[in-house]
Amino acid sequence: MLKRDYEGQNCSIARALEVVGERWTLLIVRDAFLGLRRFDQFQESLGIARNVLTDRLNRLVEEGILERVRYSERPERYEYRLTGKGRELNIALTALRQWGDKYLSEKPPRIFRRKTDKKPVVAALVPRARTSSAPKRSKRCRGRG
Amino acid sequence: MLKRDYEGQNCSIARALEVVGERWTLLIVRDAFLGLRRFDQFQESLGIARNVLTDRLNRLVEEGILERVRYSERPERYEYRLTGKGRELNIALTALRQWGDKYLSEKPPRIFRRKTDKKPVVAALVPRARTSSAPKRSKRCRGRG
Repeated sequence: MLKRDYEGQNCSIARALEVVGERWTLLIVRDAFLGLRRFDQFQESLGIARNVLTDRLNRLVEEGILERVRYSERPERYEYRLTGKGRELNIALTALRQWGDKYLSEKPPRIFRRKTDKKPVVAALVPRARTSSAPKRSKRCRGRG
Repeated sequence: MLKRDYEGQNCSIARALEVVGERWTLLIVRDAFLGLRRFDQFQESLGIARNVLTDRLNRLVEEGILERVRYSERPERYEYRLTGKGRELNIALTALRQWGDKYLSEKPPRIFRRKTDKKPVVAALVPRARTSSAPKRSKRCRGRG
């Protein structure tokens, strides 16, 4: 179990792993990206003990990665949705998936594409400026006509 | 402990976590990126039990993420170097660090810059084509003179 186990480590990677490095946690986040929201959906997808799932979901809510939202009053039922903080784990998850696809899988089971143009999306290291300004800049370029 | 624990999961993320999801493993890889190579350097950096470190290093060698290279004959001494497969974990590590920097740290402890132009480098999701072709393409663009 990872809890506060990397205490000597003054490092954002260690801190991130303290939050999402517990067993199953990143797979719960992956499932949330795939659209799962309800306890039973996660349980079915992961096949883990309900008390472990409860523990991981509670931790993810505490850490602000998932939020617990009531979707039914009678009976009272809650579902779990990714927050903005949670959604920003998509780069790390995509990078891990890509690495697993390349080195550990026979064939990549999933391809992500941008909604706007359907281009396959990959995680990559890029100069900081490009990520924010390139899309806008490319809009401003016009043809000669 | 993660070992072969995500068996029901046909997913590259789960497979990647089986390989690098054990406690300390990603921090060893991080240290290797920072230039550490020798057992005692890792041990000092991480402050973990020597048997745990031995176990993790052996696993990383088995998985082809580190290679064990002899650097001294008498006494016989080995060091650990990232392989190509290991170096490709940099996107996932950078993404985790970035997320940790943003949400869990007061101030980011490290900035990575490209060697060629010193621009800060970030992990991002980008259309697949851009990562390989954009640098070449931008060379071809010339001013009006």
